[in-house]
Amino acid sequence: MSLGISYHTTGRAFGVGLAMLLGSVAAPAFAEEPTLSEEAFERSKQLYFEQCAGCHGVLRKGATGKNLEPHWKKTAADGTVTEGGTLKLGQERLEKIIAWGTEGGMNNFSDIMTEEEIRDMATYIMMDPPKPPEMSLEQMKATRKVYVEPEDYPTEPLHGRNWENFFVVIERDVGKVAIIDGDTKEVLTHIPTGYAVHVIKASEHHSISEPEHPGRFWYTMGRDGKMTKIDLWQTPDKMLVSEVKIAYDARDVAVSGDGKYVIGGGYWPPHFAIVDAATMEPLKVVSTRGVNVDGDYVEESRVAAIYTTPHEPTWLVAVKELGQIWQVDYSDLDNLRIDKIDSAKFLHDGFFDPTGRYFQIAANASNKMVVVDTKERKLEAMIDVAALPHPGPGANWNDPNCGPVAGTTHLGVGTVTVWGNDPEGHPDQAWKVCYETETDGPGLFVRTHPNSKYVWADQTKHPEPEVQQSVQVIDKETGEIVKTIQITEDEGSAAVHFEFNADGTEVWVSKWNLSDSKEPNGQIVIFDAETLEEIGRIDGLYAPTGKFNVYNRSNHVT
Amino acid sequence: MSLGISYHTTGRAFGVGLAMLLGSVAAPAFAEEPTLSEEAFERSKQLYFEQCAGCHGVLRKGATGKNLEPHWKKTAADGTVTEGGTLKLGQERLEKIIAWGTEGGMNNFSDIMTEEEIRDMATYIMMDPPKPPEMSLEQMKATRKVYVEPEDYPTEPLHGRNWENFFVVIERDVGKVAIIDGDTKEVLTHIPTGYAVHVIKASEHHSISEPEHPGRFWYTMGRDGKMTKIDLWQTPDKMLVSEVKIAYDARDVAVSGDGKYVIGGGYWPPHFAIVDAATMEPLKVVSTRGVNVDGDYVEESRVAAIYTTPHEPTWLVAVKELGQIWQVDYSDLDNLRIDKIDSAKFLHDGFFDPTGRYFQIAANASNKMVVVDTKERKLEAMIDVAALPHPGPGANWNDPNCGPVAGTTHLGVGTVTVWGNDPEGHPDQAWKVCYETETDGPGLFVRTHPNSKYVWADQTKHPEPEVQQSVQVIDKETGEIVKTIQITEDEGSAAVHFEFNADGTEVWVSKWNLSDSKEPNGQIVIFDAETLEEIGRIDGLYAPTGKFNVYNRSNHVT
Repeated sequence: MSLGISYHTTGRAFGVGLAMLLGSVAAPAFAEEPTLSEEAFERSKQLYFEQCAGCHGVLRKGATGKNLEPHWKKTAADGTVTEGGTLKLGQERLEKIIAWGTEGGMNNFSDIMTEEEIRDMATYIMMDPPKPPEMSLEQMKATRKVYVEPEDYPTEPLHGRNWENFFVVIERDVGKVAIIDGDTKEVLTHIPTGYAVHVIKASEHHSISEPEHPGRFWYTMGRDGKMTKIDLWQTPDKMLVSEVKIAYDARDVAVSGDGKYVIGGGYWPPHFAIVDAATMEPLKVVSTRGVNVDGDYVEESRVAAIYTTPHEPTWLVAVKELGQIWQVDYSDLDNLRIDKIDSAKFLHDGFFDPTGRYFQIAANASNKMVVVDTKERKLEAMIDVAALPHPGPGANWNDPNCGPVAGTTHLGVGTVTVWGNDPEGHPDQAWKVCYETETDGPGLFVRTHPNSKYVWADQTKHPEPEVQQSVQVIDKETGEIVKTIQITEDEGSAAVHFEFNADGTEVWVSKWNLSDSKEPNGQIVIFDAETLEEIGRIDGLYAPTGKFNVYNRSNHVT
Repeated sequence: MSLGISYHTTGRAFGVGLAMLLGSVAAPAFAEEPTLSEEAFERSKQLYFEQCAGCHGVLRKGATGKNLEPHWKKTAADGTVTEGGTLKLGQERLEKIIAWGTEGGMNNFSDIMTEEEIRDMATYIMMDPPKPPEMSLEQMKATRKVYVEPEDYPTEPLHGRNWENFFVVIERDVGKVAIIDGDTKEVLTHIPTGYAVHVIKASEHHSISEPEHPGRFWYTMGRDGKMTKIDLWQTPDKMLVSEVKIAYDARDVAVSGDGKYVIGGGYWPPHFAIVDAATMEPLKVVSTRGVNVDGDYVEESRVAAIYTTPHEPTWLVAVKELGQIWQVDYSDLDNLRIDKIDSAKFLHDGFFDPTGRYFQIAANASNKMVVVDTKERKLEAMIDVAALPHPGPGANWNDPNCGPVAGTTHLGVGTVTVWGNDPEGHPDQAWKVCYETETDGPGLFVRTHPNSKYVWADQTKHPEPEVQQSVQVIDKETGEIVKTIQITEDEGSAAVHFEFNADGTEVWVSKWNLSDSKEPNGQIVIFDAETLEEIGRIDGLYAPTGKFNVYNRSNHVT
């Protein structure tokens, strides 16, 4: 695209001309256009949506993954033009990439897709991407289902259990959430939710105004945009109380500090929706399409993650492709204040510091941890870390040299990076790397508890099963790895994600049965947080991944 | 579109299916598809852009005008489906509508377009609308031109004139702005600007922090998105000091209270851009695509108007199709605070109350005046007025019964509606209609001055030349029309827009030579504001429309 702009001039001539204007309409002039039967097209579209869109985007402009448009053209600031596209790569090369993956970090899909599916997918991505429809507030309202009316909610827990030590566990591939009694280790129920729930959030304690019973209500977000509301005071068979669909593709959800509103973030359409937390009635939709930190318009600028700020009446909405964190004030929905905080691309997930004032979030394409000051509603700092930071729920602790610190694992390398996060008490160390600990492999999650001496890191992204199945335990005093624990030797299973119980005496690790994820062959392996010895295993889980302890999550214990 | 949403489900089936998803890609199955030669298509596209897009939108989804897509389908909340489109209307019917206009308020274009142009336009609007390109920050930067570097600006006025009584006058169809000495009535220069300048704004006095010399620098916005900076201290031949293009189609511009930034609002792309007011270097772009007050996503949600708030470090950006006023805080561009104030569709133009706290803006599709409290950054009130309110720069005065009031003309009817606007002193009258004055015809502008006993209203939208050429004068004491003045009898000319001189002793009215607008046959007719007698005429102007007195505009005299 030329930088000389003359779409409209005072005369009748267009400088840039029709070809550019109609770029999205005119078909590329190739001798043989790729085609699929309607059935194969539909099948590929669905498969693309499930397996590819997360990284490459439904419009295929790329984000974590590469651009997969049939033809693209870029002009750099110096005028250099680069061109590419799936049509240039061609059927054979695309099939190989899909089947075997790339050195750039793309998985192989030969295990996941059949040969026919790979062949069709290669063709499909050489065709123009179909644009999914929008979703209006009215359409959302029509999807709401209420299983228990708010006026029929119990006034005290109906099961007589210690619900504040319940664990809410994602069973990703069967579209369910298991509720486990943390005291007795019993699996109480498997609640049907949206497909492939990514994150679950509870009503939380909040310094300005808090909900009636923090931790009682939980909200899930499925990848299919379905939000469900869970009431932990109900008998297990009635815990699912209502649901609503706010997008076709989504990732995250959060509850307002006062417990009045729930916000869900869409991948497509790129927007967030605010719903009434009591009734799940959709109230407001806000588009996140926008102009990124480089000054380019991005149509598919997706909501990667959403968090409730502990001391302000706001949510943090991480708009992935924009490199912006939007601090959204829920105190007046009709006059909605949003502070658009510029940071770096592509925002992923994050966690608060122990004071709850600062939010630390990964910008994975920039290899940075971004720090937001939620009190001032502005960028506080950006910290250079290793390749593809991914902290998950994160970890905060005290370091003998740097004072309060936080750490993250990385998707790209086996490194836990640790930085100071106490600008008041330790200004010299704040937002600077304190140390790095090398682990055996890249991972997804790091976690600790104030009562524990250790920080746990997984290595789920390592290609070798043995490493993938092992987690590593770091001593907070020395920053050294003190133990490596292989939690399973079962083929097709990996170790992933940690959660402590309410008093911090146990560590729960998932044995994630990836290869038969729709079977109840997953486990949670429980360790003594002090001795690091295995205590026991909870069986009968369907590919358990994320685990959320009621007390820890509703009291900001990270 | 069905309300049952199932774009993505856990299985492989799509409920809504391909037809819906590919709605924007698949061509409608008509026996004979409308076609044009590439040349005719290009010509029609340009003509559509100049003559039609303002009301119907470049994507043709409609706003002030009707939807002009080849085929559209709407499902109401009760499930009722309506369908329509230009293809259904057909070539012949479309040609008639374009040529003769409609009773719904569309002008006839038989005077403006040739028969061939009308024929091609009818065909063009039955074809899929081409989507214009985006415009990045980098592209904007490449369009900047500096004629006088800021360090070479004069340190005092170089012409020895009373520049605070200059008038800056839009000469719309020749893409120029005339500078007139209000004391001597001399036309000093015609400065080349963007095409069809819609509005001009000056650096203004501001209660928090003000620019160095309020009223010295003026910024124009052309319909072609070109912004120019004018320095009134320069000799007339050097007053154009710099320019930059921030959109392909645009309407308004404003200067920050401290004089540091200029903001320009785009129709396409739908966004606003903030530029350095000294150098005109583009700094930031923000998309205004969003979800409207009904909960529907609007791709073409255009910036209708922008204003600087006198007491807050903010601009008000009226996003037409969203029915939202965005109060944009310029005190920290990297952490940009925006308060999105829900009101009504479609926002057009407005003006402040005398205190500068409240902003009164027309929502013309809702027949409302919307009032924003800029201190609280929220909606204050909505006032039901007559059809299609259009106040232009507006008028504020004191009414013997209602206290402080404001008034607006209407595009739809010959009515000036007057409402109370002093919630502190006159809470019972505030934001309620005080009275209505019937005029002879619908108009565009109403205007007064604190030193004047009268309010002036034009009638430019009336079809009869005699009414169109006449303005009416209303007595502030009685609300009655005291005089009707026909300012010209020249065929093809209309009376439009008022401006007082700095001390309020003169009223300037435009004789707008519409029919030969590229010839210098327009005039400004000057009246004694007290006796209402004509004082004189300024000749040699090219279709003068809006006029801006330096003192009045930079001191919020309305």
